[in-house]
Amino acid sequence: MKASSLASGSGATFRELFRSGKYVGPTAGLAPGLVQANLVVLHKELAYDFLLFCQRNPKPCPILEVTAAGCYEAKETAPGSDLRTDLPKYRVFRYGELVAEPTDISGYWQDDFVSFLLGCSFTFEAALQEADIEVRHITLQRNVPMYITNRQCKGAGIMQGPLVVSMRPMLPSNVVKAVQVTSRYHAVHGAPVHIGDPLTLGIADLSKPDMGDAVDVLPGEVPVFWACGCTPQAVVMGVKPPLVITHAPGHMFITDWHDRDLLTY
Amino acid sequence: MKASSLASGSGATFRELFRSGKYVGPTAGLAPGLVQANLVVLHKELAYDFLLFCQRNPKPCPILEVTAAGCYEAKETAPGSDLRTDLPKYRVFRYGELVAEPTDISGYWQDDFVSFLLGCSFTFEAALQEADIEVRHITLQRNVPMYITNRQCKGAGIMQGPLVVSMRPMLPSNVVKAVQVTSRYHAVHGAPVHIGDPLTLGIADLSKPDMGDAVDVLPGEVPVFWACGCTPQAVVMGVKPPLVITHAPGHMFITDWHDRDLLTY
Repeated sequence: MKASSLASGSGATFRELFRSGKYVGPTAGLAPGLVQANLVVLHKELAYDFLLFCQRNPKPCPILEVTAAGCYEAKETAPGSDLRTDLPKYRVFRYGELVAEPTDISGYWQDDFVSFLLGCSFTFEAALQEADIEVRHITLQRNVPMYITNRQCKGAGIMQGPLVVSMRPMLPSNVVKAVQVTSRYHAVHGAPVHIGDPLTLGIADLSKPDMGDAVDVLPGEVPVFWACGCTPQAVVMGVKPPLVITHAPGHMFITDWHDRDLLTY
Repeated sequence: MKASSLASGSGATFRELFRSGKYVGPTAGLAPGLVQANLVVLHKELAYDFLLFCQRNPKPCPILEVTAAGCYEAKETAPGSDLRTDLPKYRVFRYGELVAEPTDISGYWQDDFVSFLLGCSFTFEAALQEADIEVRHITLQRNVPMYITNRQCKGAGIMQGPLVVSMRPMLPSNVVKAVQVTSRYHAVHGAPVHIGDPLTLGIADLSKPDMGDAVDVLPGEVPVFWACGCTPQAVVMGVKPPLVITHAPGHMFITDWHDRDLLTY
């Protein structure tokens, strides 16, 4: 099934489609207006450190919902959902190594799993587009370019690691507006963390992202960097806990919440 | 020592004064411009539920800092501080009962204690005053009136309980400005939770607050209610864990952070 035939629909419609296995692609551009979320699933014994890590690093890890241990329904953001089946694709990490990219994690599920849903930049990208700012990777129909930076997040117990950022190039004349628009969305990474020279973040080559796809930076454009919800994946790869499951990059959980609900007043 | 002789000074100056035991009074009006914080100290085994409770109820429980287990220094908000001695007065709850109001908790300290510092309305009251809105209990030199409402917070594990609110009366002509000003301070309770009829919150008599002091509501004035950092005390009284220590109402922890640092953009 093509994403283009699914542009609209309720959150439940999309979750059922992914659950059925008929669509396993990325969710960018799907369900416009609905909040999409990053997923991190881990054992309860790791949940405190991870929750505190999120609290200390709200820009890369803005929490939308944390489930009770063993509960696979996102009761707040998507009543009736099943987090084991309702994303198009997952990533399974054992001791920090990516070992599988299944489309269903029912076989991995354990009774003490806690699921974290974190805000995703798709929400603020819609707001950028409404403000007439081109979002390059959407134009190019690619995944957003993501980079592991030289900035360390604030650690929490065993959880520590570098800040991961996403990058969107734009004309200098749009930068102020981009800061203003995204500042109003704290729950989805908020304002940029850096504007301009990638080397400041330790990024040597914009054409070689650590995750996602490279995009063209046109002459005269400035790269603008936002904290990225893939930061927990970098943490997991460094901390190497026995088992952690996340969404596959770009393959998000579609909630029932509306982007407008996340506006900061 | 009189509070009036201490109007200004660094956070460390005030913490040292309280540590010395020479001042044990409330901190309202002290250290203008510096962020003051609510304190909740509990055993590590309760910390996950309490952290999640705060995450789910950010208006009454806006987290400024969570210490590592056993660490009594607030490294982020007040480097060099000692949370066992640096508040003018504490409250000790055993199984939900208030059993002591010491000015030093060194004798109670345990190696697995985790300390939570939560935002306090003193920060937004300064902003209200700067916006030329009278804050009645400050005018009257009383503690703010606080009420236990009929609204339940979102539960987290064993942590659950009612929302506690603080109340400030004002003329209707000031209400819009009060909403605007406090909306900009998410880290200190943010916008009001209710404006007008106290019965909507289950408050039968404004002249009988559950905590703090009553204040006059003048003819034509409207009561405006904000989520209150004493909510965790109501939770503790209901959940009855073996040992929890908090600040005494109005006797806050003075940090090194500036009110302006908490402005939401």
